[in-house]
Amino acid sequence: MRYADDAEPVITLTSGPVNAYPDVLRGLSRTVLYDYDPAFQIFYEMVVEKAQKAMRLSTKPVILHGEPVLGLEAAAASLISPDDTVLNLASGVYGKGFGYWAKRYSPNLLEIETAYNEAIDPQAVRDMLKKHPEISVVAVCHHDTPSGTINPIDEIGAIVADHGAFLIVDAVSSFGGMKTHPEDCQAAVYITGPNKCLGAPPGLTMAGVSDRAWAKMKANAAAPRASMLSILDWEKAWSRDEPFPFTPSVAEMNGLDVALDLYLREGPEAVWARHALTAKATRAGLRAMGLDLWAASEAIASPTTTAVRTPEGVDEAELRRQVRARYGVVFSSGRGETLGKLTRIGHMGPTAQPIYALAALAALGGALNAMGSRADVGAAVTAAMSVIDADA
Amino acid sequence: MRYADDAEPVITLTSGPVNAYPDVLRGLSRTVLYDYDPAFQIFYEMVVEKAQKAMRLSTKPVILHGEPVLGLEAAAASLISPDDTVLNLASGVYGKGFGYWAKRYSPNLLEIETAYNEAIDPQAVRDMLKKHPEISVVAVCHHDTPSGTINPIDEIGAIVADHGAFLIVDAVSSFGGMKTHPEDCQAAVYITGPNKCLGAPPGLTMAGVSDRAWAKMKANAAAPRASMLSILDWEKAWSRDEPFPFTPSVAEMNGLDVALDLYLREGPEAVWARHALTAKATRAGLRAMGLDLWAASEAIASPTTTAVRTPEGVDEAELRRQVRARYGVVFSSGRGETLGKLTRIGHMGPTAQPIYALAALAALGGALNAMGSRADVGAAVTAAMSVIDADA
Amino acid sequence: MRYADDAEPVITLTSGPVNAYPDVLRGLSRTVLYDYDPAFQIFYEMVVEKAQKAMRLSTKPVILHGEPVLGLEAAAASLISPDDTVLNLASGVYGKGFGYWAKRYSPNLLEIETAYNEAIDPQAVRDMLKKHPEISVVAVCHHDTPSGTINPIDEIGAIVADHGAFLIVDAVSSFGGMKTHPEDCQAAVYITGPNKCLGAPPGLTMAGVSDRAWAKMKANAAAPRASMLSILDWEKAWSRDEPFPFTPSVAEMNGLDVALDLYLREGPEAVWARHALTAKATRAGLRAMGLDLWAASEAIASPTTTAVRTPEGVDEAELRRQVRARYGVVFSSGRGETLGKLTRIGHMGPTAQPIYALAALAALGGALNAMGSRADVGAAVTAAMSVIDADA
Amino acid sequence: MRYADDAEPVITLTSGPVNAYPDVLRGLSRTVLYDYDPAFQIFYEMVVEKAQKAMRLSTKPVILHGEPVLGLEAAAASLISPDDTVLNLASGVYGKGFGYWAKRYSPNLLEIETAYNEAIDPQAVRDMLKKHPEISVVAVCHHDTPSGTINPIDEIGAIVADHGAFLIVDAVSSFGGMKTHPEDCQAAVYITGPNKCLGAPPGLTMAGVSDRAWAKMKANAAAPRASMLSILDWEKAWSRDEPFPFTPSVAEMNGLDVALDLYLREGPEAVWARHALTAKATRAGLRAMGLDLWAASEAIASPTTTAVRTPEGVDEAELRRQVRARYGVVFSSGRGETLGKLTRIGHMGPTAQPIYALAALAALGGALNAMGSRADVGAAVTAAMSVIDADA
Repeated sequence: MRYADDAEPVITLTSGPVNAYPDVLRGLSRTVLYDYDPAFQIFYEMVVEKAQKAMRLSTKPVILHGEPVLGLEAAAASLISPDDTVLNLASGVYGKGFGYWAKRYSPNLLEIETAYNEAIDPQAVRDMLKKHPEISVVAVCHHDTPSGTINPIDEIGAIVADHGAFLIVDAVSSFGGMKTHPEDCQAAVYITGPNKCLGAPPGLTMAGVSDRAWAKMKANAAAPRASMLSILDWEKAWSRDEPFPFTPSVAEMNGLDVALDLYLREGPEAVWARHALTAKATRAGLRAMGLDLWAASEAIASPTTTAVRTPEGVDEAELRRQVRARYGVVFSSGRGETLGKLTRIGHMGPTAQPIYALAALAALGGALNAMGSRADVGAAVTAAMSVIDADA
Repeated sequence: MRYADDAEPVITLTSGPVNAYPDVLRGLSRTVLYDYDPAFQIFYEMVVEKAQKAMRLSTKPVILHGEPVLGLEAAAASLISPDDTVLNLASGVYGKGFGYWAKRYSPNLLEIETAYNEAIDPQAVRDMLKKHPEISVVAVCHHDTPSGTINPIDEIGAIVADHGAFLIVDAVSSFGGMKTHPEDCQAAVYITGPNKCLGAPPGLTMAGVSDRAWAKMKANAAAPRASMLSILDWEKAWSRDEPFPFTPSVAEMNGLDVALDLYLREGPEAVWARHALTAKATRAGLRAMGLDLWAASEAIASPTTTAVRTPEGVDEAELRRQVRARYGVVFSSGRGETLGKLTRIGHMGPTAQPIYALAALAALGGALNAMGSRADVGAAVTAAMSVIDADA
Repeated sequence: MRYADDAEPVITLTSGPVNAYPDVLRGLSRTVLYDYDPAFQIFYEMVVEKAQKAMRLSTKPVILHGEPVLGLEAAAASLISPDDTVLNLASGVYGKGFGYWAKRYSPNLLEIETAYNEAIDPQAVRDMLKKHPEISVVAVCHHDTPSGTINPIDEIGAIVADHGAFLIVDAVSSFGGMKTHPEDCQAAVYITGPNKCLGAPPGLTMAGVSDRAWAKMKANAAAPRASMLSILDWEKAWSRDEPFPFTPSVAEMNGLDVALDLYLREGPEAVWARHALTAKATRAGLRAMGLDLWAASEAIASPTTTAVRTPEGVDEAELRRQVRARYGVVFSSGRGETLGKLTRIGHMGPTAQPIYALAALAALGGALNAMGSRADVGAAVTAAMSVIDADA
Repeated sequence: MRYADDAEPVITLTSGPVNAYPDVLRGLSRTVLYDYDPAFQIFYEMVVEKAQKAMRLSTKPVILHGEPVLGLEAAAASLISPDDTVLNLASGVYGKGFGYWAKRYSPNLLEIETAYNEAIDPQAVRDMLKKHPEISVVAVCHHDTPSGTINPIDEIGAIVADHGAFLIVDAVSSFGGMKTHPEDCQAAVYITGPNKCLGAPPGLTMAGVSDRAWAKMKANAAAPRASMLSILDWEKAWSRDEPFPFTPSVAEMNGLDVALDLYLREGPEAVWARHALTAKATRAGLRAMGLDLWAASEAIASPTTTAVRTPEGVDEAELRRQVRARYGVVFSSGRGETLGKLTRIGHMGPTAQPIYALAALAALGGALNAMGSRADVGAAVTAAMSVIDADA
């Protein structure tokens, strides 16, 4: 049999969007309330409180009504003023990309760049800050999704805090799938969203904003106001007594509410553990199949996405086409510079379950074999099972 | 009995968001596909084609992934360049508001302003264009929702076309509830969304963009690119073979798909007819109850929202509180300049059914009586029934 | 406009099935678990416990997996043995109907029958029991739905208990909409279901069974076993440690779970109050319109269904057709002997809201006027509003 | 990690109920219409027509409103009269079980019984019919689910037809997952349901009834009438112009409607093919792991359930507990005589996808290893992949 392009696949194991938890899907179909109905205003405040709890914040997070690229663009636009000097830490396509936004708001951009399969070295940050005391904003991508690699943001955050600069963190595809919170890394603005490890659909940003960052944004005459790009507009919007700058995405809030309930009820530590175990089993299986991880070391490999280097001579797009057509399984490609060089197997939210590591390995190995590579699927599954069973 | 603030009301009769059609709510809970899955890309193209059919466009409309204020801001940012002279037609709070955005992108702003219970006179537009041949962009709000009044955009559009200027139309709360389409009014950019008369939740913009407008935006160096505010980024995104600038709101697209199916299946003319009849019955009832319409004349009263002038001595906020607490019915207040002066009864999507006019009239009248006014609910309902029955 | 037969109506105001609460509809779409999965067995026990709480029982109720006619037939088959003498109390079509089932299981059937717009007189029961000491089983329908009338089952139950007989109660369309519980009326077997006042779909029976009734059923060799008609098979099925006699209706249980949560969370007294108020407002409106209630007195008129006598010369089926075609409102007809003689307006679960009384009155009056009767809709709505406002 | 008993498992691979298709789950949450609303009556007739098409019947099938054990009991009660001689073909627990019902309705019961891992030999049926010309009813279970074995019902049906007897077929867990239809096997009454291979929840029976069977049931004075057990009551209920004997299960009909659409749209042959391939891959994997199929030969192994013999010394209940606790995967046990002797892996509806065969094999093998058996999971997965790839 063959899975047709226009039919839903069987299992989506991408680096997001992933399918939402069934409970979240049902949440999306709740009654759409009028945004100024008191029941909705009370609900909105309650959801923000749940997000605050999940993000372990001492202040209210901001919900922006667009997927996290809105949050990232809004963060750049709001926090960075023309007299800032920005240090952008680029260890991958997304980290690198933030520099272009930063540049739009300040001409003074410095960068530390690593190979896209490596992580930022905190010592390099320390050195750069020492060398450039004028640096006032540092930006870092926690999980550079197109590479499946993790930067040590808590350590970097401590260095940035020592220096007195503002840290912008892109934690879109890490938050909810591993231990990371805005205040752990002392972020000024910390951007994440429901559509990765929380298992909800794309359409919202969750942003942690420190008190100091609020003050800087307010002082920034260029920070967007009365705009879709504004963070400032939403400062008080969480309160049941305050108006919304524009109509919030009611259905997405309904979904987020459920996603936060699920996360808090299962227990963050338990959620992180199944992300970590699924990724670990996947990595063990890939190695046993003779494949190489993209990440330079296991230590920086993401628990929410496993990037595997495309074997010599294999057409990566064709590989994913075969995986989908033969087994109904969907993986992600690379992006930008990593496109064609790696395939990404996501472990996010509902798919962060070890049993899916086995399905992923079998599907990947089967497609490689079909394309003339030699992949020992049996060895891969056995290795992955060992990891899973060691944890059981 | 009393309906509590934190419990869902019984019937939401607002000017949006309104509750979605039950089928749309279920659509929102469809599987969240990966945006680069071929099944999703095929689906996305198909939804855009349905939107094209509903909007009666000869070119593909653009879906932007934020509620229509995004579309309006993006239209201003994309179409207006600093050397444009913009004529803003302000017959209400929303029309007036657009001028602030226009001003952000060009210093050259002219306005025609009417009382907020009247409509723009096409002759005034013709005169202004004659007097200011430099006018290159005209902006008009079709249904100025905070007033419940309708501007004659098809007539205005013809005048603007004659002049050779670009017309930006805000048809957010009229499209889908009455006969209006981008090409009927010769719009350059025509902004609407699923969250009013299509009976879907807020979270998306549907934009009709003329070929000439695409050319102008492309020529506009200041038009947003690589931004949430960009329209240009999405020009080709409808195609199954093109990438998305960022992750689209998958669940909202699922809902929009159903909303468009419902609209096209029921038949636009039938949908408009029930909006019109519900509004007409409501107006008849209000007059019979001795209340005044906000709109200066019946001819410009919206078929999708009926604004009723607050009787002398009545606290409008308290009136809506009573309506909700006593009967579980929710109306909208005015906005900005109309706040406190009128109450709005929405007739949109699933609530555009004449039987709801009766519920609205009873609830409004009951609350007025409870507050010491004298409203003859019996007369109101009888008058509304006459309108409905005359149509049956 | 006209509502087509094959399109969903706008408001269903029937005596059941009524549309389910939105939350219940969403509950129906929960994951279908394997019935022997421990998660389902734990869930099933928990739902039974919620049902026990809602029914205010000191023992576990039984869930049967068919709509309440299954429960009633099973009660007759299980409790009545050939040597029983059954007294059937028939004040309407449903009460009368139970006698046919009773007769199937015992030849000894006595009946007290009243006009179908009156209630059973407890004194008549007392007299009959005195005259026939051999009566061992008494059957009564609490709310004889086709008449919209209520029998005084708590009073009757006390008399039956004094006599030492077993009481079978059909409380299908009263439980959840007014104060009634199995132990309040000392029922041996008390049958109800989720598809009336609990606002869930038809497909399940909830049965309260007294310890004495369990003993009688066990002693009854003719009681069904290994059968769809068996109650005995399900005695222990509520326990997470016991097998199910056959596969339970998983989706219906998911819906019931939500319906019970809603009922318990809103508070039974509050739920009953809105049923009572809606019915009272409806009755006031009908009288003001010059129509006659079917029930001989207001005291026995049901709070969950209002039956209105068809005016002289009106074709009742045509009346309901007009109501639906003109206003999109659906009422119930009579059944059997009451068919054609009355129309029933339901107030059950989500439709037990006073605002719907106004819609019902307007629609009924409008249709009567259209058919040439004279119904003063204005007076009806005014009278209903007075009732509602007196309570507010 | 460990999956808790009270949390939903990750993948349910049972022999039913299985989780419903996501589209079916959403279907279950459609508006609950009043059963006498014309929109519902039209819908009901349309669903019956879809069922007729799926069952490839020349007459309308009957929907009974309880899961298929109702259908089987009703078939026995309706078709078998005391003067019938029934031949029951018992090749498993369910086939054997039907004999007890048959005996309830006629004292004249003959049986052919095989070992519970074998199928009925058509020649044995031919011989028995020759020897007992008085046999008037033959009953056979197509897929004896507790054994995972398939009987050759089309061949048996031809023999029974030659003899002139009535054939009752239990096709509950085969229909929809392999090629089988009532008229293919010349069934008098053919019972199936939506809750196995159609991927809908339990709660309905679909029954094909031949014209000759209708005549026999009508002539059978003992056939249930005015009863939950009646088939006769429902003869005309499919028609939009006929009343229902009692309230149908509206939500289940909504789900069935979607399930039938999915089945017909995907194409029955395609659906059967993925059931067959999943089972074949599972069998290959089990054998490669050194395990024994329960079925005596591959030829009679079911495409919808694979039963694997419990290895010597393994506690089967503990095995399934380990599978669930370690991997979140749920299998079925045996039933009755097969309980403890085998484990069943279901391939039904949404789980009939080859990728789930791999998950099943890995989970089963992993649990066996954890319990001290030696199962080569790698070999199992490799063997299963070969089967899948041979088909691709």
